[in-house]
Amino acid sequence: MNHPAEKIDELSEDLYPSRSGAQPRFIERLDPVIYSAPDSPDSPLPTEQLKHYREQGFLVLEDLFSAEEIAGYQREMADLRANPAVSRAEETITEISSGDVRSIFRVHRFSALFARLAADERLVGIARHLLGDEVYIHQSRLNYKPGFRGKEFYWHSDFETWHVEDGMPRMRALSMFITLTENHDCNGSLMLIPGSHQRYVVCSGQTPENHFKTSLKKQEYGTPGDSCLAELVDKGGIVTVTGKPGSVIIFDCNLMHGSNSNITPYPRSNLFFVYNALSNQVGKPFCNQRPRPEYVCARKGIRPLRGDLCDGA
Amino acid sequence: MNHPAEKIDELSEDLYPSRSGAQPRFIERLDPVIYSAPDSPDSPLPTEQLKHYREQGFLVLEDLFSAEEIAGYQREMADLRANPAVSRAEETITEISSGDVRSIFRVHRFSALFARLAADERLVGIARHLLGDEVYIHQSRLNYKPGFRGKEFYWHSDFETWHVEDGMPRMRALSMFITLTENHDCNGSLMLIPGSHQRYVVCSGQTPENHFKTSLKKQEYGTPGDSCLAELVDKGGIVTVTGKPGSVIIFDCNLMHGSNSNITPYPRSNLFFVYNALSNQVGKPFCNQRPRPEYVCARKGIRPLRGDLCDGA
Repeated sequence: MNHPAEKIDELSEDLYPSRSGAQPRFIERLDPVIYSAPDSPDSPLPTEQLKHYREQGFLVLEDLFSAEEIAGYQREMADLRANPAVSRAEETITEISSGDVRSIFRVHRFSALFARLAADERLVGIARHLLGDEVYIHQSRLNYKPGFRGKEFYWHSDFETWHVEDGMPRMRALSMFITLTENHDCNGSLMLIPGSHQRYVVCSGQTPENHFKTSLKKQEYGTPGDSCLAELVDKGGIVTVTGKPGSVIIFDCNLMHGSNSNITPYPRSNLFFVYNALSNQVGKPFCNQRPRPEYVCARKGIRPLRGDLCDGA
Repeated sequence: MNHPAEKIDELSEDLYPSRSGAQPRFIERLDPVIYSAPDSPDSPLPTEQLKHYREQGFLVLEDLFSAEEIAGYQREMADLRANPAVSRAEETITEISSGDVRSIFRVHRFSALFARLAADERLVGIARHLLGDEVYIHQSRLNYKPGFRGKEFYWHSDFETWHVEDGMPRMRALSMFITLTENHDCNGSLMLIPGSHQRYVVCSGQTPENHFKTSLKKQEYGTPGDSCLAELVDKGGIVTVTGKPGSVIIFDCNLMHGSNSNITPYPRSNLFFVYNALSNQVGKPFCNQRPRPEYVCARKGIRPLRGDLCDGA
């Protein structure tokens, strides 16, 4: 096993500097994409899917859940969105223009069903294998992009933000999301740049104070320059991720992604779980700002997921 | 031949009222979609394409132009966009935020090549057949949606605007556009609601003074309500029109269409010609505003296109 992240505590330098007056440029990835050995006999994924994930940086899995399970997740989503206490919670982000609920962070704290799902071995087993370590939930959220007036979300690498603003040391985390509505090619679905996870894009600008308060609605800092983006797309193209409700999309923490606006009547909801390696816990942010709130970035009471309830449900 | 529009001069009533305090609702279309007889022997299109256009309201034609012709149109587009005199012209519309050129109206007046293309019998012959009449250019424009920061354009029926703001009496016009860059499913390509041309959506609100100055950048009046849109999409779905450069897309004047934003590096350029039936010339606007400028809506010196140069080149 290749375990460069196990020496985190010894590292004090910033291996992936960004913002703070940096010029836009590429840094080659210093970390593996898949941490378990290629010939590991207990892989929950077949070799061809591992190869696809390593090279492209993402994977789409169908049929992981039964129709009954998916219907249950959809009912839970509707209940959460209709719950005034949830709407008022600090974890809930609303659309700039309309006030509609756009995201519910730390959603596994609001829902026992989603806490069980976050810890479900069908998901956690894959995360554990890809990251070669025990894992925990760095962040969870329910994203709801309404129809007619859903706003675009500009290109970014999650890792760039998690590194700079949360102090995540290495690229040893991934996102899984479960589609709860159909993701069409026309309703602002996630767009990925395949292969972009292999290079780190240093972004210009600084990190403003309390950046998370605006960046969760509209990201304006930590976004790549035009020429870096054009180079990534020139090499890897763009994939719009579409799928029926219940599809699972897994993507590397450093994969460049974004989404166009949504003027169609089709709303788009996805349930996100970010799994981080236990050995890759966050430290001091690599910027001059205070750490973001616990509901965006877990720091307290971290323990590995072992198929039981996710923490705090 | 079904020729209801030949009696225009006798009609003084507003058959398609919209705005002016109207409540959002549907009016069934009173006009044919194809005005020539179904068994007309001189149709430039095969029966199945006519059927598709009648039922769906649009048609995509490939291979109408040679590779050399398409390359010539692309060079002409680049020359026009790089021409400071064109950028400064009143016919040229710029992006709200960036100042980039977004549209050049009456583009056939700036380019002899595009004037010849507007009058090309391969296009005009189809327009003449579908509209069952001699035709002229009601409006022409070169649309340029830049990469990275291309804005969305909300759902609308062109006819609603041409009727209310230009005084176009009946649904006897159509748009043809030629793709000059590749239209992907991810770069803000045109979205259509198939079959929506069969119903007229009455829009709420008024027409503000000099509406064209803002509506050509961002349409906020003359847009349908959510419930009407949802009903149209529920019945017809949404088609994102994709195609290689040089494809020709024809769509009925009353087809509901719009486009999402474009954060991809792929710019998107299309050359639009709006053909109107000679018998359907515009009159007094069906609102309390002055007519829009000549470069948005032709009124003077109208003469039928006959395969020679389009007027005024």
